[in-house]
Amino acid sequence: MSSCIFCRIAAGEAPADVVYQDDRAVALRDRHPRAPVHILVIPRRHIANLLALLDEDEALVGHLLGVANRVARDAGVAESGFRVVANVNRDAGQSVDHLHFHVLGGRPMGWPPG
Amino acid sequence: MSSCIFCRIAAGEAPADVVYQDDRAVALRDRHPRAPVHILVIPRRHIANLLALLDEDEALVGHLLGVANRVARDAGVAESGFRVVANVNRDAGQSVDHLHFHVLGGRPMGWPPG
Repeated sequence: MSSCIFCRIAAGEAPADVVYQDDRAVALRDRHPRAPVHILVIPRRHIANLLALLDEDEALVGHLLGVANRVARDAGVAESGFRVVANVNRDAGQSVDHLHFHVLGGRPMGWPPG
Repeated sequence: MSSCIFCRIAAGEAPADVVYQDDRAVALRDRHPRAPVHILVIPRRHIANLLALLDEDEALVGHLLGVANRVARDAGVAESGFRVVANVNRDAGQSVDHLHFHVLGGRPMGWPPG
């Protein structure tokens, strides 16, 4: 069994509040939501973070952001607005070493973004 | 002349502190930086925001995030960490209606991201 929590969730081996999934991506609610809508979009394949993406992953990344659009629409925040955030390494507070895009909405978001 | 400031910058018709460009993307320093490194990555083509992406744009989006990696490396913040942010519509504070990814680094970023 993988030691990566997002790999385990993608494999159905760990519980999560999954709101969307397909052959390449899974979207789940963040366990510590910081906005009325706070969903994570992850690739099924283990990729440590943005820096670990290969040239051939370009379409996968585009797909993940398409899924971000989709879950924002499904959650009813596409028109009102949402923020998509990816954290890389320590200064950004990356907490799980498996690429994930945060999708936050349902309230006005402040600036700067952290 | 386009009324979109990012289209004008991409066309070389408006001044900007451009740090990288290629046939599909331009990266420029934010005029109101909120971190020691604060760079915007935009597509040359006018796309209003993430929601306006078409299925055939998947590779373009992946390329834009590859450029985010590149400018983070060039700015010396890849290892220390950086945050990538895209704002969509009012609640997120989207200020220019041309897709742009903020790349912020050079300091610890707080949570939540705004």
